[in-house]
Amino acid sequence: MNSEQPQVNSYGWAATDTSGILSTFNFTRRTNGDDDITVKVLNCGICHTDLHLAKDELGMTTYPLVPGHEISGQVTKVGRNVTKFKVGDKVGVGCFVSTCGTCDNCKEGQENYCPQVQWIFNGKFPDGSRSFGGYSDRLVVHERYAVRFPDKFPLDGAAPLLCAGITVYSPMTYFGLAEPGKHMGVLGLGGLGHLAVKFAKAFGMKVTVISTSPRKRKEAVERLGADAFLVTQDQDQMQRWAQWIAYWTVSASHSLLPLVGLLRTNGKLIMLGAPIPPPELPVLPLLFGRKLIAGSACGSMKEAQEMVDFAAKHNITADVEVIPMDYVNTAFERLAKNDVKYRSVIDVANTLNPPF
Amino acid sequence: MNSEQPQVNSYGWAATDTSGILSTFNFTRRTNGDDDITVKVLNCGICHTDLHLAKDELGMTTYPLVPGHEISGQVTKVGRNVTKFKVGDKVGVGCFVSTCGTCDNCKEGQENYCPQVQWIFNGKFPDGSRSFGGYSDRLVVHERYAVRFPDKFPLDGAAPLLCAGITVYSPMTYFGLAEPGKHMGVLGLGGLGHLAVKFAKAFGMKVTVISTSPRKRKEAVERLGADAFLVTQDQDQMQRWAQWIAYWTVSASHSLLPLVGLLRTNGKLIMLGAPIPPPELPVLPLLFGRKLIAGSACGSMKEAQEMVDFAAKHNITADVEVIPMDYVNTAFERLAKNDVKYRSVIDVANTLNPPF
Repeated sequence: MNSEQPQVNSYGWAATDTSGILSTFNFTRRTNGDDDITVKVLNCGICHTDLHLAKDELGMTTYPLVPGHEISGQVTKVGRNVTKFKVGDKVGVGCFVSTCGTCDNCKEGQENYCPQVQWIFNGKFPDGSRSFGGYSDRLVVHERYAVRFPDKFPLDGAAPLLCAGITVYSPMTYFGLAEPGKHMGVLGLGGLGHLAVKFAKAFGMKVTVISTSPRKRKEAVERLGADAFLVTQDQDQMQRWAQWIAYWTVSASHSLLPLVGLLRTNGKLIMLGAPIPPPELPVLPLLFGRKLIAGSACGSMKEAQEMVDFAAKHNITADVEVIPMDYVNTAFERLAKNDVKYRSVIDVANTLNPPF
Repeated sequence: MNSEQPQVNSYGWAATDTSGILSTFNFTRRTNGDDDITVKVLNCGICHTDLHLAKDELGMTTYPLVPGHEISGQVTKVGRNVTKFKVGDKVGVGCFVSTCGTCDNCKEGQENYCPQVQWIFNGKFPDGSRSFGGYSDRLVVHERYAVRFPDKFPLDGAAPLLCAGITVYSPMTYFGLAEPGKHMGVLGLGGLGHLAVKFAKAFGMKVTVISTSPRKRKEAVERLGADAFLVTQDQDQMQRWAQWIAYWTVSASHSLLPLVGLLRTNGKLIMLGAPIPPPELPVLPLLFGRKLIAGSACGSMKEAQEMVDFAAKHNITADVEVIPMDYVNTAFERLAKNDVKYRSVIDVANTLNPPF
């Protein structure tokens, strides 16, 4: 690699059209700048957003698209201004890799809500170059957008913390739920949901998992330690359990009315995904219980580091199925059918086999 | 009046069918119990809820219905356990007159969210008797459900504080908006809206009124002291003013999307009325700004007393049009056409003329 070159060769898997099917892809990234670190990708989780964007289901995809935003890796190069990391460090890189640094959100440490935020893939860096994600051999990012993993933290289970983990952790703390004794409902036991249960239990909270079918009861209660399990179809049970504390809801389309009914007075329903089509707002139940429905997306880098440190302290990692790179299209199909427990993670380091 | 009798004669105006037209009505109330006060009604505001229920637009009306829940009056009798009031005191009575006293909400001082809360009209007391509102000669209520008006507080303008006032005041304090420098949008300059502006300015907040037409600009800015005025139809203006703090929305049907767009990161949209049909929830804008939509209904009695004391200190009363009792049906028609500035208040004391 020649540091005089403006670009370095990179290699990954990309979607090239709305079929969403990935295939090998040669591209370039910027060379490592003074504030940058280069990260050899070790593992990359597969989040539903990867699939949505690969198929352009949100109407905002630029092809070719290299997905991947739940990344664990190892630092292979540091710029001369870099202070947080040294070569060999284990790091995580997540949803975004560029923010303006000057807006109120950036200044207030909530740069994930910066209007200029650029996502790790399908985004653009200030120099005009496109961002490509973690289904690839390496990343070049400003050191600001990486978190440190503690030694001996299992890097395959840690990778999904960078999106699924921070997405559930950030609103738990921001909305004041992360306290012993508070009661949280987790709607849907998937990639986000199973981590929400783990974090909530580590915070000493009481957790009830709500699912559309009784299939996951044993798993939720016996293995993940949920305190209770509710089936949304069971009207009697939903009625008996009315009046609780808080929710996590993911991108699946649910009627909000029964969920708001489960909230206690002052209860909070936090949306972490956007159902399509948008649900109806159940206004009267909000009024007569001073309840709220909020949204939350990702978390700041400060929160992400806190989350990782907290996870390491409490041995929280995602339950993962480690797969080889060339299994990714099958993994996408299984994800679409909700047939992954709970996260596919690509063993990039050992199975990508870049040609250089 | 014979205190041995279980009931006392009362007189008011009632709706008897879904026409919503009111006519004179003789009925009875319970006699004054040990914890009760009897209140001679002096003034009663006309709120849109009175009209909705008179016409059974919410499908929950029991006829005959005596509306009225924004009441100022004078104590004419006190039970032997009553400690808060003495005969001759000026008091206010508002939305509710019975709560269970034992649930978490009651114990936590948010008894307006008690699941057993009984509204001042169209409700039922624990003894099975029906509640009738303030379009009548007198009320008999537990002293708990009355607030004290300071001497010389104008009782016609004060009456609407008991619903419109507390409805805007309570969420302003609960949701942390009532602080100098915070920026609030007020959607719709009606009975609630004009009081929201007054309270917000008294708290030192910055206020922008949002209206569907430019008609109320002068009024909002020059007389009520709003800092700015926006017209929802003016797309350019709405765009320029994007990213604010908080909203008040009333029962009119509005699309929530442009309103959520005006909120800053972490902004709060508070619904104080229920649009029919229910609006669509704009989930993505909530997610990518950590915004929330909440509901709020009325306020606790403790908050109501605080609100009245604050209002008295800052000379806040509603802008009212004082009308005689027999004008009520015309006032209803004008209310339905949004043709009242900003609250009709019935001069009950001087115009009801009960036959006893």
